[in-house]
Order: sequence, then C-alpha cells, then structure tokens
Amino acid sequence: MDFEYGPKVMALREKLISFMQERVLPAEPVFERQLQDDPGRWGAPPIMAELKDAAKAAGLWNLFLRQEGGQGLTNLEYAPLAELTGWSPAIAPEALNCSPPDTGNMELLTRYGTPDQRNEWLVPLLDGAIRSCFSMTEPDVASSDANNVRLEILDEGDAWVLNGRKWWSTAALREDCRVALVMGVTDPDAPVGRRHSIVLVPTDTPGMTRTRSTMVLGFDDRHEGGHGEIVFDGVRVPKENLLGPRGGGFAVAQARLGPGRIHHCMRLIGMGERAIALMTERARTRVAFGRPLADEGVVQATVADARIRLDAARLMVLRAAWRMDVDGPKAARHDIAAAKVMTPLTVKHLVDEAIQIFGGAGLSQDTPLAMLFAQARYLQIADGPDQVHRRSIARAEFASDPVLKKIG
Amino acid sequence: MDFEYGPKVMALREKLISFMQERVLPAEPVFERQLQDDPGRWGAPPIMAELKDAAKAAGLWNLFLRQEGGQGLTNLEYAPLAELTGWSPAIAPEALNCSPPDTGNMELLTRYGTPDQRNEWLVPLLDGAIRSCFSMTEPDVASSDANNVRLEILDEGDAWVLNGRKWWSTAALREDCRVALVMGVTDPDAPVGRRHSIVLVPTDTPGMTRTRSTMVLGFDDRHEGGHGEIVFDGVRVPKENLLGPRGGGFAVAQARLGPGRIHHCMRLIGMGERAIALMTERARTRVAFGRPLADEGVVQATVADARIRLDAARLMVLRAAWRMDVDGPKAARHDIAAAKVMTPLTVKHLVDEAIQIFGGAGLSQDTPLAMLFAQARYLQIADGPDQVHRRSIARAEFASDPVLKKIG
Amino acid sequence: MDFEYGPKVMALREKLISFMQERVLPAEPVFERQLQDDPGRWGAPPIMAELKDAAKAAGLWNLFLRQEGGQGLTNLEYAPLAELTGWSPAIAPEALNCSPPDTGNMELLTRYGTPDQRNEWLVPLLDGAIRSCFSMTEPDVASSDANNVRLEILDEGDAWVLNGRKWWSTAALREDCRVALVMGVTDPDAPVGRRHSIVLVPTDTPGMTRTRSTMVLGFDDRHEGGHGEIVFDGVRVPKENLLGPRGGGFAVAQARLGPGRIHHCMRLIGMGERAIALMTERARTRVAFGRPLADEGVVQATVADARIRLDAARLMVLRAAWRMDVDGPKAARHDIAAAKVMTPLTVKHLVDEAIQIFGGAGLSQDTPLAMLFAQARYLQIADGPDQVHRRSIARAEFASDPVLKKIG
Amino acid sequence: MDFEYGPKVMALREKLISFMQERVLPAEPVFERQLQDDPGRWGAPPIMAELKDAAKAAGLWNLFLRQEGGQGLTNLEYAPLAELTGWSPAIAPEALNCSPPDTGNMELLTRYGTPDQRNEWLVPLLDGAIRSCFSMTEPDVASSDANNVRLEILDEGDAWVLNGRKWWSTAALREDCRVALVMGVTDPDAPVGRRHSIVLVPTDTPGMTRTRSTMVLGFDDRHEGGHGEIVFDGVRVPKENLLGPRGGGFAVAQARLGPGRIHHCMRLIGMGERAIALMTERARTRVAFGRPLADEGVVQATVADARIRLDAARLMVLRAAWRMDVDGPKAARHDIAAAKVMTPLTVKHLVDEAIQIFGGAGLSQDTPLAMLFAQARYLQIADGPDQVHRRSIARAEFASDPVLKKIG
Repeated sequence: MDFEYGPKVMALREKLISFMQERVLPAEPVFERQLQDDPGRWGAPPIMAELKDAAKAAGLWNLFLRQEGGQGLTNLEYAPLAELTGWSPAIAPEALNCSPPDTGNMELLTRYGTPDQRNEWLVPLLDGAIRSCFSMTEPDVASSDANNVRLEILDEGDAWVLNGRKWWSTAALREDCRVALVMGVTDPDAPVGRRHSIVLVPTDTPGMTRTRSTMVLGFDDRHEGGHGEIVFDGVRVPKENLLGPRGGGFAVAQARLGPGRIHHCMRLIGMGERAIALMTERARTRVAFGRPLADEGVVQATVADARIRLDAARLMVLRAAWRMDVDGPKAARHDIAAAKVMTPLTVKHLVDEAIQIFGGAGLSQDTPLAMLFAQARYLQIADGPDQVHRRSIARAEFASDPVLKKIG
Repeated sequence: MDFEYGPKVMALREKLISFMQERVLPAEPVFERQLQDDPGRWGAPPIMAELKDAAKAAGLWNLFLRQEGGQGLTNLEYAPLAELTGWSPAIAPEALNCSPPDTGNMELLTRYGTPDQRNEWLVPLLDGAIRSCFSMTEPDVASSDANNVRLEILDEGDAWVLNGRKWWSTAALREDCRVALVMGVTDPDAPVGRRHSIVLVPTDTPGMTRTRSTMVLGFDDRHEGGHGEIVFDGVRVPKENLLGPRGGGFAVAQARLGPGRIHHCMRLIGMGERAIALMTERARTRVAFGRPLADEGVVQATVADARIRLDAARLMVLRAAWRMDVDGPKAARHDIAAAKVMTPLTVKHLVDEAIQIFGGAGLSQDTPLAMLFAQARYLQIADGPDQVHRRSIARAEFASDPVLKKIG
Repeated sequence: MDFEYGPKVMALREKLISFMQERVLPAEPVFERQLQDDPGRWGAPPIMAELKDAAKAAGLWNLFLRQEGGQGLTNLEYAPLAELTGWSPAIAPEALNCSPPDTGNMELLTRYGTPDQRNEWLVPLLDGAIRSCFSMTEPDVASSDANNVRLEILDEGDAWVLNGRKWWSTAALREDCRVALVMGVTDPDAPVGRRHSIVLVPTDTPGMTRTRSTMVLGFDDRHEGGHGEIVFDGVRVPKENLLGPRGGGFAVAQARLGPGRIHHCMRLIGMGERAIALMTERARTRVAFGRPLADEGVVQATVADARIRLDAARLMVLRAAWRMDVDGPKAARHDIAAAKVMTPLTVKHLVDEAIQIFGGAGLSQDTPLAMLFAQARYLQIADGPDQVHRRSIARAEFASDPVLKKIG
Repeated sequence: MDFEYGPKVMALREKLISFMQERVLPAEPVFERQLQDDPGRWGAPPIMAELKDAAKAAGLWNLFLRQEGGQGLTNLEYAPLAELTGWSPAIAPEALNCSPPDTGNMELLTRYGTPDQRNEWLVPLLDGAIRSCFSMTEPDVASSDANNVRLEILDEGDAWVLNGRKWWSTAALREDCRVALVMGVTDPDAPVGRRHSIVLVPTDTPGMTRTRSTMVLGFDDRHEGGHGEIVFDGVRVPKENLLGPRGGGFAVAQARLGPGRIHHCMRLIGMGERAIALMTERARTRVAFGRPLADEGVVQATVADARIRLDAARLMVLRAAWRMDVDGPKAARHDIAAAKVMTPLTVKHLVDEAIQIFGGAGLSQDTPLAMLFAQARYLQIADGPDQVHRRSIARAEFASDPVLKKIG
C-alpha cells in the first residue's frame, strides 16, 4: 500500500484549499439566505452558478472523472480532494461538478453510453449544464436485497414502456434534472441476476411524475433537488435508450456503486474534519464553570477519540481507493464495504459528540453539525445499509484462510 | 418503593388508551396536512382545538397538576399517563393541556403566583386558552452553568426594565403565546445564587421581539411555536410582575425543572414504546432475502436490547417519580438526574436502531421515527445537558458512604 | 410492583451488614492466605467452617430457601440479602449456605426429592455438611441449545447406567462434594422435550471420574471446587436415584435455572456496589497531575454512569424477583431473561472501568476487581448465554401486542 | 505514506510463517504441559531453548533491532513480523529474542550504553543468554504521571545507593533475569524533568529483593518471570552503572517507550488475527439450533466488525511505524498514542466477542482467548494508560490549526 501523493495532486490540493477558504465557506451564509428567500424552489440557489464558473476557471472541475473530460486522477488521488469538498457538502461537490448522483451517472455514460447517448446527456452533464438522477430503490420492497427491484420495463418492439414506482432518487425534483437512469425488470423469465436493465428516461416524458421528496431527519435537501419519489405510469422511451447490455442492469449499477460508496466516504472524512475543527474551536473559546471547555477531561477524551477514529476511518478509505486503483472495484469490494460501514458510523458518532459539546447551538441551524449528522446517518442506509455490507464482509471472512492455519 | 397503581389511575389509563387510539393517532395525518397547508403559521393546526375539547369532555385535562385545577395525581400516578401521551408527542400532550413549557409555568404560578397573577395568567392557561414560554437559556453564555444567566433586569422604582437576549424559549413564536417567564439578574451585587429573579412579561410588551426560531436537527417544531430567540430591549413591566421572591430565581426555576425533567422522561418512555411497536411491526411484515426481518438474529438482538433498556429506563423514571412524591424534589434530585441521563440516551439509541431496521422510510416523514429521534437527542441537552447531571451524580457518590465500609 | 420491605427483612439486612463488616470482609485476606498455603487443595480453606458456624449462630443460614429448612423469604425479600453477599462472592454465599450450585440443588430436592432422597442428600446439604454439583453442560455440543444434551442414561432394569462427558460442573472437584445431579437422555425415542431425565449420582460411584477443572479467564476457582469436567463410563446407580419424573429433565432443570439466574444477578449487583465503593474510594484518595482523581471529569462521568446503570440493573432484578413471587417463574421468564442479560453486562462494564481507574492494581490480586470482572464475564455465558436470552425476549416481543395498536 | 514491503521483508515473512506453523504453534501444548509439570518455576519451560536455537538457525533472530546485532529493519518493516509473533504471544516473541522488556533494554544499551556496559549486558542479551527487566512504575504513586516516580538514588561518591519500591517489573522473577534498569531520583533539586536517572542494577546485588509477582486478571505470567515487585533497601552499585546522562532519565525512558508501545500494538494485531481465526473456525464448524453459527446474523455482524476494526487498527499501527521511521519517534508521538489507545481497545473487544461465540471454552484454558483478553486488557494500562494518551492527543489537537480555518 502506498498513500503518497505526487506533485499534481499536491498542487490541486493547495488550489482547492484556497477555493474552499476564499469561495466556498464564505458562500455558505449566502447560499442559505438565498434558499430561505425562495422557499418554493427545488434546486441550487443562484450563487451556485458563480461558484461553478469560478471552479471551472480554477481548473477544479470534474476532478472525480479519470477518463476523458476529467482530470485523469486515480481514486487514491481523488481522495484528498473529495475530502476537502466534504467540509461543505451542500456546496463544494456541486460547485466542482463532483456531486452525486451525477458523478456516478457520468461514469456510466462514459463507460456504457452509445455515441448518441453521450452526446445528448454526457456532454451537458460534464459541462454542469444539466443534472440527472438515478432511480433504483423502490418504496414497496426491501431494497437492501437488489433482486427485489420490480419496476416493469416492457419491450414493446420499438419502445420500452415503464410502470412502477421509485423513491430516494436524489436530485429528481430539481428543475434542471433532465434525465433519469431507471433500473427495472426487462426480462422477468431470465435467471436471477440477468433480469434487470437500465434505461434513460428524459424527465419530461409523459407518464413520469415526480410526486414528492422524502426527508432526512427533518431536512428536505431542497438545494439538491430532494430525494424524489417518482411514479412511472406507461412511460414510453425509444429502444435506443437502453444503457449498457440488456439484462446487465446489476452489473452496470454495481460499477456505479463501488466508486460512489467510496466517494461518499471521502467526503464524510471531510465532514468529520469540520466537526472536529468546530468542536476544538468551541472548546478553546467557551468557558463554563470557570474554565475553557478544552480543560475538561471529558471534552479532551471526546476530541482524542474523534481524532483517533477519524484518522483510522480515513486510512480505511484510502486503502479501498488504492485497492480499486490497483486491483479493480470487484477485488476491492470488501475493502469498500469495510470503509462504507466504518466511516458513516464514525462520523455520526463524532458529530453527535460535537453537538453535545455545543449544546443547543449544535442542534440548531447556527452550526453545520445537525446537517452533517443527517448526512452521516443517511449514509448508514444509502448505497447499501450497514447490515448488508457486514454480511458480505463476514462471508468473505468465512471463505478465506487465515495466514496461519494450525490455530488449535 | 411501591409502583402499584390504584383504581383511579387504572381507569384514567384505560380512558387515555381509548383517547389515543380513537382520537390522537388518527389525527396525526390530519395534523400534518394542516401544517403543510398553512406554511407560514407558528402554532398548532386547527384540529388541535377539537382534540382539546374532546380531552376536556373525557376528563383527561390537566392531568399533570396535583393541586387545584388538576386531578390530584402524584408524580408516580401521572407517569403511566404521561407515557401514553409520549406515543404522539406533537399532539397528545397539548391536547390534554399537559405540554411543556406551560405545565411548568402553571406549576410556578400555582405555587408562587399572587392572586392577580393567577387570575390573569393561570386561569386561562389551565383552561388551555392561552400559552406561555419560559426564557432562561441565553445564546452568548454556557447555560449549563446557570450562574452565567446575564439578562439584566433593572429596578426602576415602579417597573422592571429588561435588556438582554434569550433563546430556546419553546412556544415563544406561537400567536397564542401571551406571557413569558423571564429569568434575569436583578441583584448583581448579591451573593451567587441570590442574584437572579423571574418576572412575567406579556408578549406584546414593547421592546420584546421574537426574532427567529432555532431548529432541532432539521425540524422547526412550528406546531408548538418553535424555540424562540427573543431580544429584550428596554422592556418595561410593572413591579408586581415579579414571580416569587426577589433573588430567588434559581430556587423558583429549580422547583420547575425537577418535575419538568421527569415529565420529559415519562413521555420519552412512550416514544420508545412507539419505536419498539414500529420496529416489531416492520420486522414481522417486511421480507428481505427470503424471510421476515423478525427471523434475523441481528433484528432479534436489536429488539431484545431495546426492550431491556427501555424497561430499565422506565423503572428509573418511576423511582424518581416515587421519590419526589415521598421525599420531595430536592431529595429526589439525583434520582431525577439519573433518569434524565439514562432515558434520552436509551430512547435515542433505540430509535436509531429502529430507523436502521426501516431503512430510508425510517429517516423520512413516512414514520414518526425521525421526529422521535430529534426529541430524544434534544433532551440530552435541554433542561441540563448530560454532562452536568453526570457531574452532580458523581459528586453525590463521592460524598456518600457505601453500605459496607471496610472494602480493602 | 411493590419493592417495599417489611421489618423482618430489614432486621435480617442489618444483621447481615454487621456480619459482612465484622466477619466476612476481615476474613478475605485470611481466606486468600490459607488458599495459598495449601496449593493442592480443592475446596474452601479452614476459615470457612468458622464463618459457617457464625452465620448459623446469627440466624443468617439458608436465607435463599422459602420452604421448610429455610427462612420463608420471597425472592424479592431475598434480593437485598443476596446482594450483600455479592460484596464478597468467594466467601459470603458459602458462609451463609447460600451458594450455587447447592442452592438450586436443595430447591430441586425439596420440590422433587423422595423422602429417602431428601433424607440422604437434602438434610446434610441444608446443614452445610456436604456439597453437591449439577452436571448439565457438555463439552462436545452447543449447550446453549439444551436439546443437544446427549449423555446416555440407559435403563437396565434395576439401575441406570450413565455414559458420557460433562463439564462446567461447579464445585465438582471439592473433596466434600458428595453427589452430582446429572442430566442425560433416558428416552431417546420420546418427543423432543421429553427425552431427558435427572439422576442423583454419588461422587464415589465407580466409573465417575472428575478429570480436571476449567478455568475462568485466569482463575481456577479452587476455593469452590473449580468447574469440573467429569467422565461417566458405565456409571451405575439404583433406579430410585431418579430425581423428578422420567422424561421431565428439562422441566426440572428449568425450575432450577429461573431462580438460579436471578440469584446470580442479585449477587452481581452487590459485586457492582463493591466496585463502585472501590473506585470512589480510590478517586477520593489518589492524586495524579496535582489533584485527586475525583476532580477529573472523566472519572466523574465513569462513576456517574456506573451508579446510573447499576441502579437500573438492580430495579430490573427486583422486578423479576417480584414477578416470580407474584406470577411464578414461568410468567416471569422474560423478566428474568432481561435481568440476566443486563446485569452481567452492566457489572462487567463498570468493573472494567474501575480497573482502569486503579491502573495496574486493578488488574492484580491487590483488589478484588479482577475476580469480580471474571465473575461478571462468566455470567454472560453461564446459565444461558446472552444470545439465547435475547432471542427469547425478542420472540416474546414479536408475539405480543403493543398497548396502542394503530401506530401507522 | 507508503506501506509497501520489499523482497527482504517478504522473504522474512514467509520464513516466519513457516516457523510459526511448524515450530511455534505445535509447541504451545508442550509449553503449557512443561509449565504445569514444574509449578514452582519462574521462567520459560525447557522447550524454549530449542525454539531459540531453531529461530537463530533460521535467521529469525533479533528482528526488532535496526542497529548492529539486529537485522537492519525499519519499524515499518518489523511490523508484519512482530504481528505474526503475536499469534502466540507467550512463545514466539521470546523464541525470536524479540520479547519485552528485553527489546527495549537492548535498544537503550545500544544507544546509551558505555562499551563496558554493552559488553557486560548487551552482548549476552543479544545472544538470548540472559534476561533483564525495567523498573519504573511504583506501587505508592500514580505512575500515569511519570513525575511521581520517587525511588531515591543517592550519589555517594563512588556509588549510587537505591532505596524504594517498584512493581510491574516484567520478567523480574525469572532465574535468568540478571539485570534491572531502574529509574529513580538522582537530583531532587533539579527542575522537573531533570531529576531522574536510570542505573543498571545486577539482580544479585545485596538489598534488592524481588518480593512477589502481580497477576493480570488471574494469570501469573509465570513463563515470562511474572511482573515483579522489588524492594530496594540500600542497594549499592558503582557510579559507572549510570545509563545515559544524569538527570536524563525521562528522555532515555521515552526513547524506549515509543518503539515499545508500537511493538506491543504490532503483536496485538496478531493476537486479534488469531482471535478472528478462532472465531471463524468455530462458527464454521459449530452447530446450534440446527445450523452452523456462521449462518447466524449476529455472528456474521460480530465477525465483520472484528475484521473492519482490526484492519483499521493495523493501519493506525503502520502509520505510526512509518512516521517513526521517517520523522523520528518524537514527531510520531501522537500517531503512537493513537495506535496505543485504539489497538488494545479493539483487540480486547473482539476477543471478548470471540469468547462469547465460544461459550465456556472461550473462558477456559482450552483456547488462548482468555490469555489474549488479559494481554489486551493489560495494554490499556501498561506503558501509559489510555487516559494519558487521550489527553496528549487532545492537547495536540487543540494546539494545531485545522486545514481550513474559516469554519464559522
């Protein structure tokens, strides 16, 4: 394992630190005020356009993408940059055109898209001109078991016709969300694992209705277009809107989910860093019972454990990123799963402790802590709940031989 | 310790169970819809008035109050009833005129109010015609240390003049909130513990401005009038608005906080019961990987631990209630503190586990779990953060002799 | 629930406190020295005989037994007395003739013994003249599933013939252990649950060999006769040595295990109290970095949490004892299971924290903490591992209706 | 950070794996039997000499030492080898002459020893011909605060005269323990931090009495010479026995403790691996309630969490080792502290879970789990208790600037 960074990454990192300090963090109160001032709107407030222009100008654009259109960074190289964007998760990832679900969608279009599909959807996505969503989870079935996905995609000769219901389609309600990647059953009689396919559905297709957004611990995530519930009622799209091979829906989705999970973890590490920065700042400056909180043993223990656990989680994330680069996402799947279980749990816990150090302010809108907590909590469920990842790690463990065999 | 209930309590409990089943739980979706339909309004939606009438008619009114105007119940007798209201914490407590901060305010007015004060404020509060708030916490100081309270209450002969800032004044933004009980410094030169007093401030007094509400995680708690931040800028009230003795603000507040804390805990137990009911129902009916979740060992362990811990927390709450009845709130303060530390932590943890069993639905508005989580989390901070209660329990422990002394 | 004690119990408690202070705690170093001085011996050192005489003289004998030969105490009444004996678990229970496995064995003989069996075994056991063991667990099968018990008990007309292997038979290696209650399969073709029976086997019966003792962490528990592994190789006992009905072995064992589990928990609460007494004493007197440990926030938090959790566990134990008295052991089985899961875990955790406060001394033989830790850890496994109790609690929860049904 | 290993380390690792498989693990029962057969002896049983010869012959000797006499390995290179020895912590480290406290003592003699001192003590230590102990901790003071060390070392012209008491001097009771490195106060009037020095005391010096050994959770650690309590009563050694500069005792000890802590952690990782190997093997083969434990969700979750946390702890250990190599022990001290807090806690927890999966066998001498548990628990206290390391990490955190400064 080698976690050293070359000069290219170090230069990008310096540039991104400046961008975060000078543009993103100062934009936070403006962003919030613009959201408040336009309560009906689903989507990023006006300042986002300025930030995107600035990021493009600074060469901080599409960092996530290794292929053409991106910056050629490996997962390991992307890690410290994605981490920095996690300090301001509502703003920075989108400002850099590095926010899910678009990132995963762009990767799929890069890898599986036909020239026409890429021209129509990938080009404007890479430019940040439109947004997209990914529709896999369904409200009526346990989506932790992907085989449960049951939206029907009928083959009607020259068209696919979709019937069913999706939810947790992040960004779906945004006005600039132009296309949904929808997973459903195209081949109900095929063997398990070969029944599902993904089709591209323009969001203005008749029969597709975004009915509402689901909340996360009280937050509506309106700035990113919420988490859409979508009804598909006889939605008809041309046959050429199939993305990737017919019956290959799971394989395609998996290719998306591996990097997606680890990108989430990278940003979470940054969220954890911000929470530590907030709590140490508070502890240094707040006086209770005659001395700064930083002199309290309980606060010291809290800060120390936060630092220890967050550093450990970061190393697990870097290990997974490194393994993906070296051996590919499939070989890295248990490393990804381990990072995906450990990181949200770690960050949830430390943000919760930071809230307790802040008291009421920690729960309120006056610090980002409540939002960071919601993000971490959400990621114990999104992209595979902890339970499912634990099971796959355990199975791998049962199937592998220990280094030493005679253990008596 | 004797936790047996007599026939009077058992009859009230049966009546309240019916009321919860037939009126309160069915009102939840209506309540939510009415809130959505009137987004600008700070206060309970229209259905609340109907529920209050029904509760009055059913004899389920002012159960919290032992004195005249209430039902003569001890804390121990009130416990199982308050617990039931915790199943629907946004609706039931207010429907029964048993919701904080009014309950504590009514207790103070009953105990310390002059005949005029009682006539003006207590009578309509007991009738549910108006609401009130309690303003103690301040944004600029560590309120865990009550000596930090610094709002200035100047003695200007025939009037008190208030200058300062408060926050976390629950219900303050409600249109029917007519009076604030405000703690501040009347005697800055008196010894510590004798400097503060409480005055009654009508909410329409010039100079008193409710500037905003603080959120709890992502929730605005709009139905109960939020958690108000209030600026007092030369607010002038007559001298007779002093509540209780001058310089006795802490003693008065303490008389309010003890029962208030334990009432919170009683309701939290009910919230925990609802979360267990939700998770067992989900586990019985949801199928993943070919069998109901109830057959999963991890789910079983989660449910068992939730049951064990919640039952233990309830016993701690009952012990504190019993001790308050028998020995008074002061003697019971460490029992109250123990219940106050244990109950929110227990309920927070079990609701978090319930959310994980539900997946996305658990985080969303489709179950009450996210709101229950926020309530439990809030109560690790409100009415004294865990840290402060732990310290006082530890000090009592260090000061007391063990049963056996020669322990070698 | 009514946890009040009458004057009889209060008087016994006062007497027992004196006995613990004046006789038991001072005997600890003598007991330890006598053990060291006679390294080959399996059994209580000489001072135990004096203590037993003193306990008899003080009327503190056979407190556990409700029936004739005991003191007529209910489980709830026995609880505070058993708790006191837990302060010195290696000495006090045996000194009062209240130590397992004899207590459970005496209960079985009282309930199921024939007059001859009672005369031969119960009378000397009640007198403290002999000891006994209970042989159920087997080394080759998962004993958490009692149906796995497979020792063969052949019906050879006028005799039972036993073949098989047992372990974790506490006290088996003691020289004064005169009889084993052995569970095995008498009726292999009967339905599950009706195959097993219990027979009385004098320890000098040919073919019965106590091969060794298993340790608990690093402790050999030599003073109580260890935890015997026993080989039964054609062991022949008369037909009249059957205890209770043929095929009723599980029912008989269950009658023993319910009270046994809760007695263990009562003593564990006392062990927890001793650990708290030790850690508060240490914290008051030990100075590090210029001030007593008691002034350290982390120590305060540790002590407070220990107090909160131990009090909660005690209430759970009392609830189970009360329910056993009022509704019988079967109806109380989930309350017993809850106490059995919560109490060892709670005490293990708090003793571990006490060890950390002591540092090296806490790990060593200079405090009883290491031994208390081993006791608590052992009871997460003995008499049913936590996993099994959790499962049965969960199943009860899934099978029961919540108080309120419409939970949406 | 670069955790890649070159061919030299990979070759040593292969060789060591074979040695562990073929020599060490098969020696475990022999080792145990030889210990039992010679109950009075303090020291390694006879088979150790054979193993040491075999290790020397295999080129697996003094791997820990970078300097002359060792193998030139960096800390990072030593890590995977030390980890392997952790699989059998009672045997492998000593068999390879890599066991504390000798390793640290050899490092000190290498670094600070005069030619005479090196000739007399270092040469035979490097050869495995004698053993040594390190005497710092004292029974009467809180040794977590090193300034408390108070053994008196008087300067009597041509000799040092020692008076005082030490404990937790591991290996002190071994018959082949020939020298103690003793820290005490030589300069009581010097500034704090300059008062202590270390002197070499041959164990046969008059006035030095090894009075007893302290146990660890019931284990006497007799094979390694226990943990000696030593009385120094007018012990006189020549002036040239001073090790390192006068008044520089802390600096010298610190140079020893940094690597020592991280070596402990490396071995702990191996202990954790053995516990995982044991629990997965058990889970695969043990059937309860009709199916292998490996099919139980709770067991799967336990195994997965064990794997995740142990991998994370290993990365933290490697990070600390790498930093020590690159930046030196002082710059790495917070990385060392983080690994030192995380690793024992992680391994303790996972071994505890492994014990629960095994049931009674896990507590007993039939598996190494109980001993592994004691090792991990011991290391939460030895070489600095968790509390002290947490405090120093917290202080570093308060003193450092976060990556992004405007965090508002």
